[in-house]
Amino acid sequence: MIPQGFSFSAINAGIKAPDHKGLDMGLVYCNRDASTAGVFTSNQIKAAPVLIGMDLVRTGKSRCIVVNSGNANACTGIIGIENARAVTAAVAQRLGVGSSDVIPMSTGVIGIQLPVSRMLDKTGELVEGLGSDIEAFSRAIMTTDTFPKTAFRQAGSAKVLGFAKGAGMIAPDMATTLAIVLTDAVIEPQLLDNIIKSCISDTFNAITIDGDTSTNDTLIALASGYVQEESALVEKAFHEVIQELAMMIVRDGEGATKVVEISVTGAENDADAKEVAMSVANSLLVKTALFGCDPNWGRIIAAVGYSSVQIEPQEIGIQVNGYAVVKDGIENAGFDEDKLHEILQNKEISIDITLGPGDGRFKAFTTDLSYQYVEINSAYRT
Amino acid sequence: MIPQGFSFSAINAGIKAPDHKGLDMGLVYCNRDASTAGVFTSNQIKAAPVLIGMDLVRTGKSRCIVVNSGNANACTGIIGIENARAVTAAVAQRLGVGSSDVIPMSTGVIGIQLPVSRMLDKTGELVEGLGSDIEAFSRAIMTTDTFPKTAFRQAGSAKVLGFAKGAGMIAPDMATTLAIVLTDAVIEPQLLDNIIKSCISDTFNAITIDGDTSTNDTLIALASGYVQEESALVEKAFHEVIQELAMMIVRDGEGATKVVEISVTGAENDADAKEVAMSVANSLLVKTALFGCDPNWGRIIAAVGYSSVQIEPQEIGIQVNGYAVVKDGIENAGFDEDKLHEILQNKEISIDITLGPGDGRFKAFTTDLSYQYVEINSAYRT
Repeated sequence: MIPQGFSFSAINAGIKAPDHKGLDMGLVYCNRDASTAGVFTSNQIKAAPVLIGMDLVRTGKSRCIVVNSGNANACTGIIGIENARAVTAAVAQRLGVGSSDVIPMSTGVIGIQLPVSRMLDKTGELVEGLGSDIEAFSRAIMTTDTFPKTAFRQAGSAKVLGFAKGAGMIAPDMATTLAIVLTDAVIEPQLLDNIIKSCISDTFNAITIDGDTSTNDTLIALASGYVQEESALVEKAFHEVIQELAMMIVRDGEGATKVVEISVTGAENDADAKEVAMSVANSLLVKTALFGCDPNWGRIIAAVGYSSVQIEPQEIGIQVNGYAVVKDGIENAGFDEDKLHEILQNKEISIDITLGPGDGRFKAFTTDLSYQYVEINSAYRT
Repeated sequence: MIPQGFSFSAINAGIKAPDHKGLDMGLVYCNRDASTAGVFTSNQIKAAPVLIGMDLVRTGKSRCIVVNSGNANACTGIIGIENARAVTAAVAQRLGVGSSDVIPMSTGVIGIQLPVSRMLDKTGELVEGLGSDIEAFSRAIMTTDTFPKTAFRQAGSAKVLGFAKGAGMIAPDMATTLAIVLTDAVIEPQLLDNIIKSCISDTFNAITIDGDTSTNDTLIALASGYVQEESALVEKAFHEVIQELAMMIVRDGEGATKVVEISVTGAENDADAKEVAMSVANSLLVKTALFGCDPNWGRIIAAVGYSSVQIEPQEIGIQVNGYAVVKDGIENAGFDEDKLHEILQNKEISIDITLGPGDGRFKAFTTDLSYQYVEINSAYRT
């Protein structure tokens, strides 16, 4: 399952708190130069590792990724940049690679400086720990995630392995927080860049938990180039791995009790369809109704109506798990509230919205909004 | 306190449910032609009374407003229009006015037809009840509101009296759900229209509870023309009345435990400042942090960063109730987390965000997001 050339390590560096015992620092290492590409948050407030990573991926090659959870190293100014560089330089020195070959990633609390001396003290342990424990690595990048997120596909003779973390501050552009995709296929950096950009449009950029775009979103892909394989096959595997990671993030959305697919068809174009789907996916009233299994379809159509896309009210149709709720903009004849209430008990909900005769379509993925979301996000961190 | 020429009535018409005992139908009557102006929801899914009202206010005059709570008469097709017209016609006939002189307003559940025969049976009682009980009228328009919302100002010798309801599906453009403002001043319809449009920009269009724009938002203003008064004085009273109603809606936001003022200064222009203020005001992560008094200012700056306005991260400053949290885009020297936690215990929070040297400014008003918001909005209506 591990693409050729890669090894992993995960340690506790006391980042979440000096006495925190969980894994919070990880390393991915490639034993030769790897083709490298990345996608980064569209938030204008970019964390230090994002600013550094955006610069590094321009070379199209790297050797490793050092990642920490528990601290985002965002809004930390020049000191934040210096701290991230100190960590990557120490790791680079121990591995005997150039410091521009080490990409930093961070996730966690904004505005606090990294505990850089504790991290530097641990770089020896981190590098010595390199091996095949991908489970431990996947746990080292978790924050409020309730399960680690990895996905794997065989692409002919090549392998594609992905990691991601959730589970809040998740919104499109780009909605991943952190993700890493590794392959041993031969791929030029430019093609790798094209592949990940085309893969995220209907995956990471189609999910939303809370509409909040993070300061740290980063997806990095590395290709070690050991295996010659058809690029279409590799691209398909990339898409499936990234799709699976995106859906894991939704399933693990903070406090989520349901996974919700919102499919919009019949729009003028795909961009309009996405706009409408995201308007519904981010509506608090829709999300709380789904949590409570409230058959209040008016909230769905209201969210369609306040999107910025021009619509024809009398052409709208809505189905929930295949049950026709709205037809021609009004309640479908024979609609039964109790029946919809029963359908909404399902843990997997699909809302299909048709807008008219156009060809534009988009599928968005989201969750309901529960008491637990409020609990997770209102707790004063200690 | 009642502007000359107006009378009021409120009854139970069994709209919320056949056995519901509360007031759910109200009437405002003017004993002569009143100058009339209105502002309506920007949601493209417009309720039947909105479609009718938009048409009627074009004449610039009317005689009364008939309003119901418990049923929005939205997404009800042609039948919804016919039902609203049947009610206004019956009221008009009993009052001896033209049916185009009666403006309908509705608020409540979307997608259910009005119980029109129960309402028609009650029009006699409604018209006979006309009198001075403004308290009863203000209660008849309530849905999830926990208190009735009226505001009054004396404008020299003229009076300005306003009513509004809250308390969910509140977002700018136009964020009122329903509001009525009455005056006995002499005001031409065109001036009345100008006054209400200029009054809503920093009031109803500056508040957001949940970012959901309703299908029924309507503000109607009537001027009976009994009192000649300086128009600047009247306009000032209108602004104060509308401002007070808007703040009541925020204070009564569903599940709100805090009133939050988000003031943005230093933007390139006012529109940019509004965009940033609304991005912060609608952030679930900001709103849940405020509920939990979590001193996590990173969520505020992240929401500034993902707004569509171009910003300079290193120029951002943030103060919370006057306490400097962020300076030059990073944590202010000497910032103390426990102190901010203590400040956030206040029920009135002001967040001041400076973006740079520009003159653009905007103040938005919102609430925190509590367990109770989820409770109110996830409960399956019965």
